[in-house]
Amino acid sequence: MATSPNEYLQSNREQFLDGLKDLLRIPSISTLPENKPDIRRTAESIANELQEMGMRGVEIIDGKPGRNPLIYAEWLEAPGKPTLLLYGHYDVQPPDPLDEWTSPPFEPTIRGNDIFARGSSDDKGQTYILLKAVECFLRTEGRLPVNVKFLIEGEEEVGGEHIEEYVALSPERLKADAAVVCDTEMFAPGLPTLTTGLRGLVYVELEARGASHDLHSGVYGGAAPNPMQALAEIIARLKGPDGKIRIPNFYEDVSKPTRKELEAWKRLPFKEKAFLKKEVGSSALTGEKNYSVLERLWARPTFEVHGIRGGFVGEGAKTVIPAVGTAKISMRLVPEMNPKKVLRQFTTAVKKLTPKGIKTTARVISTAPASVVSTDSPYIAAAAEAMEKVFKKKTVYMRSGGSIPIVGLFLKHLKIPSIMMGFGLPDDNLHAPNEKFHLPNFYGGIEAVIRYFELLGK
Amino acid sequence: MATSPNEYLQSNREQFLDGLKDLLRIPSISTLPENKPDIRRTAESIANELQEMGMRGVEIIDGKPGRNPLIYAEWLEAPGKPTLLLYGHYDVQPPDPLDEWTSPPFEPTIRGNDIFARGSSDDKGQTYILLKAVECFLRTEGRLPVNVKFLIEGEEEVGGEHIEEYVALSPERLKADAAVVCDTEMFAPGLPTLTTGLRGLVYVELEARGASHDLHSGVYGGAAPNPMQALAEIIARLKGPDGKIRIPNFYEDVSKPTRKELEAWKRLPFKEKAFLKKEVGSSALTGEKNYSVLERLWARPTFEVHGIRGGFVGEGAKTVIPAVGTAKISMRLVPEMNPKKVLRQFTTAVKKLTPKGIKTTARVISTAPASVVSTDSPYIAAAAEAMEKVFKKKTVYMRSGGSIPIVGLFLKHLKIPSIMMGFGLPDDNLHAPNEKFHLPNFYGGIEAVIRYFELLGK
Repeated sequence: MATSPNEYLQSNREQFLDGLKDLLRIPSISTLPENKPDIRRTAESIANELQEMGMRGVEIIDGKPGRNPLIYAEWLEAPGKPTLLLYGHYDVQPPDPLDEWTSPPFEPTIRGNDIFARGSSDDKGQTYILLKAVECFLRTEGRLPVNVKFLIEGEEEVGGEHIEEYVALSPERLKADAAVVCDTEMFAPGLPTLTTGLRGLVYVELEARGASHDLHSGVYGGAAPNPMQALAEIIARLKGPDGKIRIPNFYEDVSKPTRKELEAWKRLPFKEKAFLKKEVGSSALTGEKNYSVLERLWARPTFEVHGIRGGFVGEGAKTVIPAVGTAKISMRLVPEMNPKKVLRQFTTAVKKLTPKGIKTTARVISTAPASVVSTDSPYIAAAAEAMEKVFKKKTVYMRSGGSIPIVGLFLKHLKIPSIMMGFGLPDDNLHAPNEKFHLPNFYGGIEAVIRYFELLGK
Repeated sequence: MATSPNEYLQSNREQFLDGLKDLLRIPSISTLPENKPDIRRTAESIANELQEMGMRGVEIIDGKPGRNPLIYAEWLEAPGKPTLLLYGHYDVQPPDPLDEWTSPPFEPTIRGNDIFARGSSDDKGQTYILLKAVECFLRTEGRLPVNVKFLIEGEEEVGGEHIEEYVALSPERLKADAAVVCDTEMFAPGLPTLTTGLRGLVYVELEARGASHDLHSGVYGGAAPNPMQALAEIIARLKGPDGKIRIPNFYEDVSKPTRKELEAWKRLPFKEKAFLKKEVGSSALTGEKNYSVLERLWARPTFEVHGIRGGFVGEGAKTVIPAVGTAKISMRLVPEMNPKKVLRQFTTAVKKLTPKGIKTTARVISTAPASVVSTDSPYIAAAAEAMEKVFKKKTVYMRSGGSIPIVGLFLKHLKIPSIMMGFGLPDDNLHAPNEKFHLPNFYGGIEAVIRYFELLGK
């Protein structure tokens, strides 16, 4: 009989894999109403496992009608030891296009060292790592070296409204020293990775109106205001061709990554040429000259136009001066930048740049602050050490240019950092056909979390 | 019995109106395939009238399969006198939306001094003016004081390909000293007007491509090229907020209107405030400061964006860096500007402004040179005098900011000016419900053309 958590893991690899397969067979697609029963089944299945392994206070939280359930569970019998909030999500993206899958998306199939199924990497496989690591302790030692609270959601792929409301309302219940978010990836195969920063976001829809109706450009061109021209002028003045954002004072709160971080990024196996050719596929990269590509992606704010619509866009020629045009624009924020302040700076700048005869309106669609965890945090240090032991390589620190809303919510409402231990790989095909999860990362992930708990419990 | 053309007109007003009504009853909509038989009937009806009044060589020219017929007729028995090419079109716009018509579009109805029907002003009514003026001579004097050739088309509302081919191939047959184009309007009610200039056009579709596929703006923003940003930059640099077009050497061939023209425009009853409020409906007019509104509309080149498409334009937020964006852009040209040269200047400027990482392609959709007739031309002077006599006011000269392709074709292939005697009114609802033609302008138009022929034949 296994006496240590790790021995238990090693002698139950088959059972753990079977459990994961069972979870992957349920098509818990959160965006489709017809999968509501599958969402429920998945939540119940996870709650049952937590109950059976000995977690306390297991609860399926339904929330408002129509919401997908949250699962909460706790084990708080390690007085004086840190408390960790363990996060994952059980909902998945739709599997389309179905005909591009080599094996059906909800029939988990092993090929080589990978398990192929929708949700295998994002995020059932990674959520299951957290469950199994806890189980390894409870089944052997009957206790954990730290206190843990699980909070698992089923709406991550559709905006996460339920968890947003719940976290805001339950700071006491969710109180913890740090969160462990298992929903990111390694920088490269075999390279243990901690994601320590995420950019924030201000997303707006900018509308420009000129004449009260579409005008004939022959008859009115030269005297009537053109909202498409106005949008072009405003956008071109808000960001220069050098990649510098020209909104006054935009950069004043930007905080730089630490020297340690910058040095760590330099050592990452990042090949600019491969990034350009294989990932972007353009003739050149762009952006601020004095920053490396990774700095531009992770530690610099951005200004991007996502789309413009307005006027005549069909085949051939129509000589119209449109009455209205719209642009979707977002700014990614880095730590210390305040979304509200950025929004104010943006609208002030737009107002100043709006040409005569044109009315502009900026409608906010979403905002989120950036987040960053210091690499000096003991929770990061322990995670790095735990992963290093398992994967036999020095843990690297990366950031992500995108946003993971839950990290911002934990920071805002619970005032805790999120330790993003990610076991996905860059080629896991998230949100795409043939999603997979690398099995050595599944087992290695469980082992790393076991070691992490042990280190923090010392 | 009437002995002069004008007496004949005065004693046949009812018959002429009945003839016009018959013509207006045929729904000769050129854009709808189901109206092909109506197009044919209209062409035959006009050809018959020309035959019956005594025109020679009357011919319905079918052209390539699918083309709408042209009608040609001539009377060339005034040796030593000028030859005029008389142009009009018998096809009309579709009448939709039908429920906004007070009386049915193809049941000509008199209300007050106006006849309401689709095509009444644009252009059957005006074409009929030319026919009836010729008839007044042939039925009374049995001859005309000048030589005339009719060329009437049925594709003006759908691009006029047939007449374009025909004019290019038949410079000998169509040889004339001047064309009379009856398809424009008076500047204001009761104000006899000659249109002496039209702007030309260069219409392009500008495409910008960045990455090989849409990218996530969080993951790639800051390093990947954005074609929407590129389009905005290019457009904003091609025209300044001051209305000045910044394409190098763009203005070098621009010819100014004569002082006489400029002075005449100043005397026109143009109210900038009413133009802004009632026609444009924006908070202000725009464009080049040092030019009056009419100069900006008639005598200055323009650069207008007609539409932009690309990226995400749906509801809410999608954080995409689109792979491709497109803008429809046209430049209106004034006399002496060469469309090919302008196109070259445009593409050179775009190339220079295209930021790194982006590929731009400009696809030409159409080009046409501007045209202008000197107000000193004897054909203009006679037209002005003829109209003045009939309408009892000094004839004014205007230009039009738009293009009438046939005028460019006559200039290019036949090397002749077009005398645009227009009898429409600004409120005739062209291309809209309740199109009408002012009956005093119908009769006055016939009388003016009679006097014009007499003056030129002296």
